[in-house]
Amino acid sequence: MKISLDGKWKFREVGSLEYLDGTVPGCVQLDLINLGRLPDPFYSSNEVLFYSLEEKDFEYVKEFYVENLDRYQVRKLVFEGIDTVADIYLNQYYLGRAENMFLKYEFDVSTALKEGKNTLKVILYSPIKEAERLKKVYQSKYDYPQRSWIRKAQYSYGWDWGPRILQMGIWRSIYLELHNGLEIVDEFIKTEHLSEDLAVVKVFARINSFEKPESGEIEISDGAEIKRLEPQVYKSKEGYFIEERIEIENPKLWFPNGYGEAHLYTFKIAVKTSNEVATKEVTTGLRTVRIIKEKDEYGESFIFEINGIKVFAKGANWIPADSILPRLTENDYKALINMAKDANMNMLRVWGGGIYEYDWFYNECDRNGIMVWQDFMFACSIYPDEFDFFVENFKKEAEYQIKRLRNHPCIVLWCGNNENNWGFRDWWNIGDPEFLGNRIYKKVLPQILLELDPTRPYHISSPYGGEHPNSEKAGDRHTWDIWSGWKDFIYYKHDNARFVSEFGFQAAAHIDTMKKYIPLKDQTIFSKVLRMHEKQDEGIERLIRYMAGWVGLPKDFDSFVYISQFVQKEAIKLAVEHYRKNKFRTAGALYWQLNDCWPVISWSSIDYLKRRKALYYESKRVFSKFLPAIEYENGRLKVKVVSDDITSRTGELLITIWDFDGRKHFERALKVNIPANDVTLAFDEKIENLNVLKGEYIYIPKQFEATMIGHRVDRGLLESIVFVSLIVDGREYENYFVFDKFINLELKPCQFEYEIKDDMLILRPRTPAVCLIIEADGDVENNFIFARPEKEYKIALNGANVTEVCDLLECLIR
Amino acid sequence: MKISLDGKWKFREVGSLEYLDGTVPGCVQLDLINLGRLPDPFYSSNEVLFYSLEEKDFEYVKEFYVENLDRYQVRKLVFEGIDTVADIYLNQYYLGRAENMFLKYEFDVSTALKEGKNTLKVILYSPIKEAERLKKVYQSKYDYPQRSWIRKAQYSYGWDWGPRILQMGIWRSIYLELHNGLEIVDEFIKTEHLSEDLAVVKVFARINSFEKPESGEIEISDGAEIKRLEPQVYKSKEGYFIEERIEIENPKLWFPNGYGEAHLYTFKIAVKTSNEVATKEVTTGLRTVRIIKEKDEYGESFIFEINGIKVFAKGANWIPADSILPRLTENDYKALINMAKDANMNMLRVWGGGIYEYDWFYNECDRNGIMVWQDFMFACSIYPDEFDFFVENFKKEAEYQIKRLRNHPCIVLWCGNNENNWGFRDWWNIGDPEFLGNRIYKKVLPQILLELDPTRPYHISSPYGGEHPNSEKAGDRHTWDIWSGWKDFIYYKHDNARFVSEFGFQAAAHIDTMKKYIPLKDQTIFSKVLRMHEKQDEGIERLIRYMAGWVGLPKDFDSFVYISQFVQKEAIKLAVEHYRKNKFRTAGALYWQLNDCWPVISWSSIDYLKRRKALYYESKRVFSKFLPAIEYENGRLKVKVVSDDITSRTGELLITIWDFDGRKHFERALKVNIPANDVTLAFDEKIENLNVLKGEYIYIPKQFEATMIGHRVDRGLLESIVFVSLIVDGREYENYFVFDKFINLELKPCQFEYEIKDDMLILRPRTPAVCLIIEADGDVENNFIFARPEKEYKIALNGANVTEVCDLLECLIR
Repeated sequence: MKISLDGKWKFREVGSLEYLDGTVPGCVQLDLINLGRLPDPFYSSNEVLFYSLEEKDFEYVKEFYVENLDRYQVRKLVFEGIDTVADIYLNQYYLGRAENMFLKYEFDVSTALKEGKNTLKVILYSPIKEAERLKKVYQSKYDYPQRSWIRKAQYSYGWDWGPRILQMGIWRSIYLELHNGLEIVDEFIKTEHLSEDLAVVKVFARINSFEKPESGEIEISDGAEIKRLEPQVYKSKEGYFIEERIEIENPKLWFPNGYGEAHLYTFKIAVKTSNEVATKEVTTGLRTVRIIKEKDEYGESFIFEINGIKVFAKGANWIPADSILPRLTENDYKALINMAKDANMNMLRVWGGGIYEYDWFYNECDRNGIMVWQDFMFACSIYPDEFDFFVENFKKEAEYQIKRLRNHPCIVLWCGNNENNWGFRDWWNIGDPEFLGNRIYKKVLPQILLELDPTRPYHISSPYGGEHPNSEKAGDRHTWDIWSGWKDFIYYKHDNARFVSEFGFQAAAHIDTMKKYIPLKDQTIFSKVLRMHEKQDEGIERLIRYMAGWVGLPKDFDSFVYISQFVQKEAIKLAVEHYRKNKFRTAGALYWQLNDCWPVISWSSIDYLKRRKALYYESKRVFSKFLPAIEYENGRLKVKVVSDDITSRTGELLITIWDFDGRKHFERALKVNIPANDVTLAFDEKIENLNVLKGEYIYIPKQFEATMIGHRVDRGLLESIVFVSLIVDGREYENYFVFDKFINLELKPCQFEYEIKDDMLILRPRTPAVCLIIEADGDVENNFIFARPEKEYKIALNGANVTEVCDLLECLIR
Repeated sequence: MKISLDGKWKFREVGSLEYLDGTVPGCVQLDLINLGRLPDPFYSSNEVLFYSLEEKDFEYVKEFYVENLDRYQVRKLVFEGIDTVADIYLNQYYLGRAENMFLKYEFDVSTALKEGKNTLKVILYSPIKEAERLKKVYQSKYDYPQRSWIRKAQYSYGWDWGPRILQMGIWRSIYLELHNGLEIVDEFIKTEHLSEDLAVVKVFARINSFEKPESGEIEISDGAEIKRLEPQVYKSKEGYFIEERIEIENPKLWFPNGYGEAHLYTFKIAVKTSNEVATKEVTTGLRTVRIIKEKDEYGESFIFEINGIKVFAKGANWIPADSILPRLTENDYKALINMAKDANMNMLRVWGGGIYEYDWFYNECDRNGIMVWQDFMFACSIYPDEFDFFVENFKKEAEYQIKRLRNHPCIVLWCGNNENNWGFRDWWNIGDPEFLGNRIYKKVLPQILLELDPTRPYHISSPYGGEHPNSEKAGDRHTWDIWSGWKDFIYYKHDNARFVSEFGFQAAAHIDTMKKYIPLKDQTIFSKVLRMHEKQDEGIERLIRYMAGWVGLPKDFDSFVYISQFVQKEAIKLAVEHYRKNKFRTAGALYWQLNDCWPVISWSSIDYLKRRKALYYESKRVFSKFLPAIEYENGRLKVKVVSDDITSRTGELLITIWDFDGRKHFERALKVNIPANDVTLAFDEKIENLNVLKGEYIYIPKQFEATMIGHRVDRGLLESIVFVSLIVDGREYENYFVFDKFINLELKPCQFEYEIKDDMLILRPRTPAVCLIIEADGDVENNFIFARPEKEYKIALNGANVTEVCDLLECLIR
């Protein structure tokens, strides 16, 4: 029996006389907001009001009543998560100390728990002060940052997309577990063999019991019942267990999104003793995973192979979806994972500076075919693993999390940390040290995983592989010379990474989100409040630098928001097109980052309120199964079609070229063969044959050696835009192309009509559009739209009211 | 006797039938402009019209008459400079080939020259094609750029501040030299000992003569006659020479600007034979120079010591003052060197990508006490010194230039090249190669200098010294992580270079210059024409990035020009204040760059038309002998006084603090002792005692670890401005300080009155000004002015008419 201790609690700052109403799961920050004692930290600059909390200690207290305790031989108090450093008292008993946010704590309360009224007290200590205490006690020669000492979500200390809100509290559920000793634990369902007509699965579980269980039962279903059997219960030194090899004929496999159904099976395990029954349900999928690491002309490949299929990983990095975690709900996860799926993603990386996510997350990924690259929670720092206390603490965390997560088919990789090994090399210049985290990444984790989950690959760090941790030749790579290193995003085209697990480009949040959280008077490009919502040092400067290089400067705040989103989507479009055309030399492109933890200018495609930025719409297009991509090189215009389909297909390709006045200069329709899981050149023609050249020349400044010189170009090219449409199986895949950076083009605003009918916006362009922005009070189906004449665009409004449709050009100082 | 062949010539493209009027000294480009066949290359994008010339060959022809040739035993044709690859014919004779722009060519024309009419023909070959030819002939495994093959000013191939105009022509004078064999050559005046009461000078000269000269005479004067003596004429294997050790009592030394008079002596050397007299005048100065390179706690010092005085080098880098060299006049040099002197500079670096300058340059530097750091002409490339032809060509150049320049006291250092050794290490990753230029810098040059000029230090490259060529620990350093590397200029404060021979920050040219060369319709921030006048790749982006980080965005073209200049001057002010306060850990600060070669957005402080940018006015202030510099650290406001005076002084310091509404919060007047050639802390007070704090707090976003957090600051600081005035010997030295980046301040536009009286603008501020801009049609005495209330500012207008005086804040999108 479980008795929840969630719900209403009391809390106070240690030393204060006044108890306030608190909630579990929850945290001090959330409680104070709910009480109205602190305002929304996300509005304006309110974040700063939360800084002082981090130096304080808090006490949470709950009185509760229990009865008939003598019916249960086993009485446990379970904390699913405490954030972070805390002492726990039940009645007059000290139960112990918590010091790891990522760990489940269980206390035997057979003695401490009483019939009737009980008082549970949790004292939470300032993580800042605790870190300082540890520093003093352990006296390392290394200057570890405060956050490295505490096993707590690292992003809460402030990140370059997140506020500094050091959450403190009982952030997950608490309950009493009362029973008579029978428990199923450590359940693990391993696929041992998988082919089209047969899966062999090994079901393992340990059984805690005071007596030998009478019998076990395993029932496999996926809606319909598949199999039911009665496994033997064995005994070993460690106790009772079941271990059953099960054959499933004609199994339905779990496929990543885009490759088939993400089929799931439920395994129900039951055991009973003379007086007790225990059951456990595990939902999992049947799939194989390996990383193809083979030497080739470029170095060594890094390709995820799922069920024997090479999969180009398309997706993004995932960060915690709120800076105040306990207010996240299952619906938040459903919505976000669904959006990832709708954007044709097949992989998310749970980044090491956040948390091992809620079950909701992995369940949704299981269901939606979203592969998960799972980091262990270390990021961008050195860690004190020279000390055994730290390693022991982490070992418990790893064991707990691996057992918790190993049955999720979505997880395809364990990864030791985020960027720490890169940091050893390039940031801290300490080579490849024995400690500082490496003991964990290189020794502890491989050992634990060998024992607890040998079914998935383990990767030491992200990035890692090759001679240099961030090599283009092997392993994965984080491409940050662009954006962080200020490099122009045209250079994505030179990135030959084997797998790009991070690359990204910032933009403002959705305009409505910006306006909701930035007070009207502060809605200017350089207001201090706006700049409090841009967490990267010199982030605003970078936004403006890239605007200046590609488009121009915004004329006001709204324009700033729109242009930032346009540039972001163009940068990522360029990158992803390049990476996908380079498949499988490059075998994955996960942009930084899918989501936000608060309203902020960041690299995300979906903002904190789950509103879509321009990049979100672009992701959908650029990650789609078939991608027609246009390029212009050495005087030839080419269309390449990237296919992630596992069978070869045919399609209808339509190429049209227009000038910005709406004159059509070229049209070609052709049937194309699209080889499976490959890239094919579908169109290749000399520019002279496309009727766009005018013989009138113009000079645009271009780099030549160390200088910028006038580069002679036919004016016709700067006045042209190419559209491509590919129809496969009745579905249309579109793309567009211009012959230079927008700032060099002879752009003209699009002339168009639109009408709204049946919750649809029907758009009829008379001249080509590079970017039309629909201003509406809700999330419309598509936005930041490129569009060609002769086509009618129907955009579902999803109930939103349209205020205006405008051309991006109107946003610019001209 | 010299017979000039300058003046009117004929020229044509090789293959063309039409001869056109040309000029010597001159070049094809200038001739075509003068003929109206090509427009001003500096206007609009006209530069592009000049590109095609570089692939063509040209022929220059002159007919001239000579008489009485038989009077002269020696008949030479002298070219002071040919640019660059040329074959030379006199009448039916082929005289030879020129292939080095930096060399004087002399041909014996005893045979070729006729009585009466002569025809001299110079065929100039495309430097591009010649480089390609050499590439093919020599077949190196290294891919040298075209420009590396040809001994021609490297900047003419296009630089990040200069257009690509490959000047071709007879760029310096030509003359016939007719005499009977007596010549004084290789004159060299060496100071062998120098003290207050005695200079010992060795005068050396070689004498070409068919017979033993009868006698010599040396006359030393500096207005007044100092000494006259008759040296012996010696004979050695190489021929006749004089070598005379001369004592000058109570010599007047040559001092750098700011350290005393740049006193010059003229040495007139005469020799005669039975039938001929030859004389030579050398103007030189008496001074010693060495670089103090001593190990210290930071590494190794790099301090110029002149006449026993440690001199902090203040100045800038010098580039050719025109992309079309032959139109430069002595007056251009006089004006520019005078401006450098007026800006309190004491050193210019003649950068290796330009030319060994005209005599005018060194004469003016001699006269004005401007020390010259003289590079040899190699820049930012690898050079084919694996081939003897290249080394031999260079050797002649080096010998010629060293002999030509070694008597100039202004030159204090020979330097092998610009940035090539840095490039070996960091750009081309080729370590420290044997060739690629290193043969010249490390073997050839030291040997030649040992022989021809052992009186000055030689430095292998700029930058060079220490373990890394661009080390902060030894040698000189080019600080380019700021600007080129996009780093914020606040980081100048962390640069502990021993000598900063390059650092810089761009801005637009003077507004009138911009408007003169950019057509009205193109006067927008992103027009293609404007961007043709910004030669650095992503230069505009950088300008805007720093504006965005410090000030805000410009509202229009004029504002863009003004703000760019303001940011430039603030960046360099910050840097120079830091470097000077760091003296002699840092012993020099030469910003990139003094001047321009065309109208351009560049790092210069003086634009092509010699108009002053904001940085010019700032240079004057920040390089002045006494610099009061304000800083705020750890809650204390400090004033440090940097003195470059060689004697200790006293001064009157006035510190006032105001808010932007014009209220005075603090005033302190004090007498200060200013130790000689040092930095002294003149004022140091806790901010609490300065009456500026309000106890009202505001949060500004500041970097903390990996994120930006709200940084709590007293609003009073953001509303305050500090002014300091130091009076020494009746001269006032001013400075100002604000407590954060301008974008974080609570700035208000200055309220002021002004009147114009007697060609003076009299300015009376009622509230403090950070930057007042005087718009006028000429160069006023001061501009981009900070100003405090209670003071009247008198600015000489030098005849200019004032249109408006405005506050910089009015330039911003607010």
